[in-house]
Amino acid sequence: MATEGQIITCKAAVAWKANKSLVIEDVQVAPPQAGEVRIKILFTALCHTDAYTWSGKDPEGLFPCILGHEAAGIVESVGEGVTEVQPGDHVIPCYQAECRECKFCKSGKTNLCGKVRSATGVGVMLNDRKSRFSINGKPIYHFMGTSTFSQYTVVHDVSVAKIHPQAPLEKVCLLGCGVPTGLGAVWNTAKVEAGSTVAIFGLGTVGLAVAEGAKTAGASRIIGVDIDSKKYDIAKNFGVTEFVNPKDHDKPIQQVLVDLTDGGVDYSFECIGNVSVMRAALECCHKGWGTSVIVGVAASGQEISTRPFQLVTGRVWKGTAFGGFKSRSQVPWLVEKYMNKEVKVDEYITHTMTLDDINKAFDLMHEGGCLRCVLSLHA
Amino acid sequence: MATEGQIITCKAAVAWKANKSLVIEDVQVAPPQAGEVRIKILFTALCHTDAYTWSGKDPEGLFPCILGHEAAGIVESVGEGVTEVQPGDHVIPCYQAECRECKFCKSGKTNLCGKVRSATGVGVMLNDRKSRFSINGKPIYHFMGTSTFSQYTVVHDVSVAKIHPQAPLEKVCLLGCGVPTGLGAVWNTAKVEAGSTVAIFGLGTVGLAVAEGAKTAGASRIIGVDIDSKKYDIAKNFGVTEFVNPKDHDKPIQQVLVDLTDGGVDYSFECIGNVSVMRAALECCHKGWGTSVIVGVAASGQEISTRPFQLVTGRVWKGTAFGGFKSRSQVPWLVEKYMNKEVKVDEYITHTMTLDDINKAFDLMHEGGCLRCVLSLHA
Ligand SMILES: NC(=O)c1ccc[n+]([C@@H]2O[C@H](COP(=O)([O-])OP(=O)(O)OC[C@H]3O[C@@H](n4cnc5c(N)ncnc54)[C@H](O)[C@@H]3O)[C@@H](O)[C@H]2O)c1
Ligand SMILES: NC(=O)c1ccc[n+]([C@@H]2O[C@H](COP(=O)([O-])OP(=O)(O)OC[C@H]3O[C@@H](n4cnc5c(N)ncnc54)[C@H](O)[C@@H]3O)[C@@H](O)[C@H]2O)c1
Ligand SMILES: [Zn+2]
Ligand SMILES: [Zn+2]
Ligand SMILES: [Zn+2]
Ligand SMILES: [Zn+2]
Repeated sequence: MATEGQIITCKAAVAWKANKSLVIEDVQVAPPQAGEVRIKILFTALCHTDAYTWSGKDPEGLFPCILGHEAAGIVESVGEGVTEVQPGDHVIPCYQAECRECKFCKSGKTNLCGKVRSATGVGVMLNDRKSRFSINGKPIYHFMGTSTFSQYTVVHDVSVAKIHPQAPLEKVCLLGCGVPTGLGAVWNTAKVEAGSTVAIFGLGTVGLAVAEGAKTAGASRIIGVDIDSKKYDIAKNFGVTEFVNPKDHDKPIQQVLVDLTDGGVDYSFECIGNVSVMRAALECCHKGWGTSVIVGVAASGQEISTRPFQLVTGRVWKGTAFGGFKSRSQVPWLVEKYMNKEVKVDEYITHTMTLDDINKAFDLMHEGGCLRCVLSLHA
Repeated sequence: MATEGQIITCKAAVAWKANKSLVIEDVQVAPPQAGEVRIKILFTALCHTDAYTWSGKDPEGLFPCILGHEAAGIVESVGEGVTEVQPGDHVIPCYQAECRECKFCKSGKTNLCGKVRSATGVGVMLNDRKSRFSINGKPIYHFMGTSTFSQYTVVHDVSVAKIHPQAPLEKVCLLGCGVPTGLGAVWNTAKVEAGSTVAIFGLGTVGLAVAEGAKTAGASRIIGVDIDSKKYDIAKNFGVTEFVNPKDHDKPIQQVLVDLTDGGVDYSFECIGNVSVMRAALECCHKGWGTSVIVGVAASGQEISTRPFQLVTGRVWKGTAFGGFKSRSQVPWLVEKYMNKEVKVDEYITHTMTLDDINKAFDLMHEGGCLRCVLSLHA
């Protein structure tokens, strides 16, 4: 390609400061170094982690940065030693890497690869611990090892999932975060069995993906819990069979669910990021076996609590990151499941826009009617 | 037997009031009703739950009562419909019942039978919701469905494990609580695999049984943590390979263990009942897969807490009651394992006394040198 080995100047949405509107800037994107891949991002969605870091509440957030981590694109060029992808490959950049070599990858017990974390956690690339983004020489930090709010980005090769070339990138970009997180929380983390009773707290994209995961796992009751009753209509399409709005009850929501289910649910999922709801989600589980999975991300410094008796009497408290999916190995599989109509993706996309409208897209996230807004970056 | 169908008057240690010395009294023990078994208790040990209820800190504690739940004896007579044991059978009364019929027993997922809980929780028998113990007509409450600090007790048939007639009752009485709790926490709840690294907080009977369980499971490092350094010597005999005294370190104990184990342990067990230690036990687990099991019983009202990030990054928080063992089915199996020298019991018995010395035995529990004190009831 003509751009290979060259600096590319392209449009990106830059977060200069916490809580200030993003600015579309001309950004210089350096060529990929050893073990790196430069990707032309075609479509990106917005997720709450972007909004959280942007808000300034994330103590590890670094500015200026380029946010974004739920996207799809095409490899533009690769650095030295990159063997698994080549220019032209359709890919999904993954904030959760998979190196297949570190003790996490080799454990067989977790998807939390440790290979590039020391760099991605501080907004740089591992090779030289510098950023590939700059504006007139001033470096702009990476975010989550993905930075997809840019027409071109550079990521570590261990963070690139090569997907089916016919997959519609404007849809499957969602398989970079929220949808796999919900499906995997059910399939990988909780391992819900057929006939189970499930409660889902929060019916945004993640909660709805939990519902779909639970439905395909054969759960017999899928109880959606949300403070926004409008969520029930859409949630039905994802498998939710009953709906509870905590605001309609005087009793604590855990008690409402225990009463509704003759002792508690088999599995519960917190998909909000609220520590009090995390407690309720644990405590609505059935004594003896109920398992609660924390999926939502709470604000920094917040703590969960409960009486230890809840655990001594058999409840299990877990959490999940990216639904426990191994990114490079399993995102391509999820893409094919979508292409075979075995998992939904289109149904989560409530809005589409261009990169120019990104601030509007952030505003939309706080509105009940928005699940995922997909931005086109080269429109 | 001559006593069948009759009230038996015998010696029992009665807790008249919280925190007041137990008094050896002549107690009337009524004959067993339908579904009940009257047992001549030969030996009983003391456990912390006895001391906790006796102290008055247990809000569900009822007085006057007869404490005791770690014992062995011989069936004296049985009530109507009791088929699984008969007079003369050697038995261990189990505070955790196993009816094989309730939804808990049938779930295959828990040992927390629910059949008689509504009665045992309030110190009575299920049949008529009354006590079988009285002194001159004044009822004395049962405790944990066992009340083994009495020469004779009445328990529900679902709470009686029939054991090998040659098993030495003065030893296997310990298989009624602490030892199975520790072994089962490892084998049933955590399911520790060969090669694992294990941390055990608290090296009393329960913690030592965890060590033995971990050793037989093939754990490669078994790190004992106790504020009493004298515990290390004895703990070595149970499989502990390394010892840490939190008092020897300025850093939080979770950090000490994370450093010692290159990232954290695979499994941790809290065997003290201290909520801050429960947090440390979770937080010393390895990211991605570390599992922490709460075994200790905290005082009423106390809460555990942590940052949800601990769980989102793959740690699992669980608890165990009676080590997850199904009492009637598995206590006899444990007794045989002991008889085959596959599990230790004798080594936990540091003191033996008679019922008359029970208050001295309670005092001993607060001394580091005492693991289990076994009382002989008919000496
Ligand atoms: N663990 C992971 O790997 C991972 C990955 C992606 C997203 N997340 C997190 O998952 C969470 C959900 O993401 P999303 O995109 O679905 O968010 P969302 O905002 O679209 O959905 C949240 C839903 O929760 C509801 N809600 C809010 N407060 C509530 C309460 N007190 N009780 C009941 N319902 C309540 C809202 O009405 C909304 O429908 C976020 O915290 C996000 O950061 C985690
Ligand atoms: N879950 C169950 O089914 C079950 C059954 C039996 C006992 N238990 C509970 O298990 C716990 C242990 O019982 P046990 O008989 O072994 O008790 P124990 O008192 O003999 O042992 C406790 C040990 O913890 C040590 N310790 C105290 N504070 C400590 C601290 N801050 N850090 C490190 N070590 C500390 C003590 O020195 C002692 O060696 C109790 O809470 C008991 O109620 C639970
Ligand atoms: Zn996300
Ligand atoms: Zn790795
Ligand atoms: Zn006990
Ligand atoms: Zn039962």
